[in-house]
Amino acid sequence: MSSSNHFQPVLLEHASRLVNHGPTVLVTSAHGTRRNVMAAAWSMPVEFTPPRIAVVIDKRTFTRELVAASGGFGICIPGTALVDLTYALGSASGRDLDKFERYAVEARPGPVLGLPMLESGCAAWLECRLISEPHTEDAYDTCFGEVVAAAADARIFSNGHWSFREDNTDLQTIHHLGAGNFVRAGGVLRAAPPGTP
Amino acid sequence: MSSSNHFQPVLLEHASRLVNHGPTVLVTSAHGTRRNVMAAAWSMPVEFTPPRIAVVIDKRTFTRELVAASGGFGICIPGTALVDLTYALGSASGRDLDKFERYAVEARPGPVLGLPMLESGCAAWLECRLISEPHTEDAYDTCFGEVVAAAADARIFSNGHWSFREDNTDLQTIHHLGAGNFVRAGGVLRAAPPGTP
Repeated sequence: MSSSNHFQPVLLEHASRLVNHGPTVLVTSAHGTRRNVMAAAWSMPVEFTPPRIAVVIDKRTFTRELVAASGGFGICIPGTALVDLTYALGSASGRDLDKFERYAVEARPGPVLGLPMLESGCAAWLECRLISEPHTEDAYDTCFGEVVAAAADARIFSNGHWSFREDNTDLQTIHHLGAGNFVRAGGVLRAAPPGTP
Repeated sequence: MSSSNHFQPVLLEHASRLVNHGPTVLVTSAHGTRRNVMAAAWSMPVEFTPPRIAVVIDKRTFTRELVAASGGFGICIPGTALVDLTYALGSASGRDLDKFERYAVEARPGPVLGLPMLESGCAAWLECRLISEPHTEDAYDTCFGEVVAAAADARIFSNGHWSFREDNTDLQTIHHLGAGNFVRAGGVLRAAPPGTP
C-alpha cells in the first residue's frame, strides 16, 4: 500500500476532527539525532480554534524526554493495517533501539517543526507544538499541544470530513481496548437530526 | 431493552478500560434540585491507579456550572441504540429544559456521590469526583476527575474486559466524527504479540 501519495493537507480549523472519535495514535518525537515513536491510547482535542489537543505521555518514557527537549510532538493515526505495528511500538522503549529502523517505519519531516510523520498505513497526522504546562505534565502526564500542521489520506478524509467505506477498511482507525485487543471504527451511524420525534 | 438488570460493579483498577478506546460519552451532573446530561466527544483516561480521567466541558455550558457547584460528574457510555439520543443531548441546553424529562431518560443515583447515572442503552458508567484544577479548567475547559465508582453491562464488559460480539451490537460504543455522524466500534482486531516477526 503506498498511501503516502494520497496525503493532502488538512485545514487547521478541521484538525480536531481527525481525533474527535478517539482513535489510538502514534506519538512521534525527535531532538538532535535522536527520534522515537510510541503508541498512545489517551489523547483528545481540547479546542477547535486554535486547534489544540491533549495527550498523556508517561514522564518515564523516552518520548517525554524528547518532547520536552524539542518542544513538539507528532500525532499519527494508524489504520487497521498497522494494528500489529501499533501494539509493538507501544511495547518497546526507544531508549534501547531506534524503533523506526527496527520496525522499518518510514517517516517524512513535518512541514513546520520537522518532526517525523508517518504516512504509509496511516489515515492522518498532526504536527503539534508543545504548550508548556509544567503542573499538568507533572501531575497527570498530560501534555497540551497546538496543532501547527495536519494532513490526511484523501481516500478516508477529505474536505474536512471522514468517509468510512467498504473500500477503505485498511485505513479505518483502531481503538485499543487493552492487552493488544483493538476494535476498528467502522459501520457509520447517522443520527437523526435533533428534534426528530 | 432492559439493560439495567445486567449492570455489575467494575473494579476501580479496571475503570480506565471503560474509556480507553475513545468512545463518545454522556456527562451527567446535578446540584440541589437541578440536573443535566450532555454529550461529550472529548474525554480520556489520564491515570490507571488511582483511576483518573479528563473531560472537556465548555465553560459556557450548564453542565460546567453544575459540576463546579457539586464537585462531581458522571460519565455514561452510550451504546449504538442511543445514537439519536446522544446527538440530541449534545444539541440542546439543559438551562432551558430538564433533558431527562424531555427525552425520557431514566437515571439512578450513583453509589458514592448520588449523581444521575444512565444504564438503559448504555454499556457502562463512571462516577467521578472533580479534582479542582482552576487553570486547566479555565485555559482548556479540561476538567480532571477521580473515578469513585464504576459499573458496566455484563453483556459487553465483565471481569475487567470488553467483549464486542455479534450479539451485543446495541451496546457497542459510538464515536462521533462530527455533525451527527458516528462510527461504531466493533470488529475486534487482535494484534500479534510484540516480537512476532
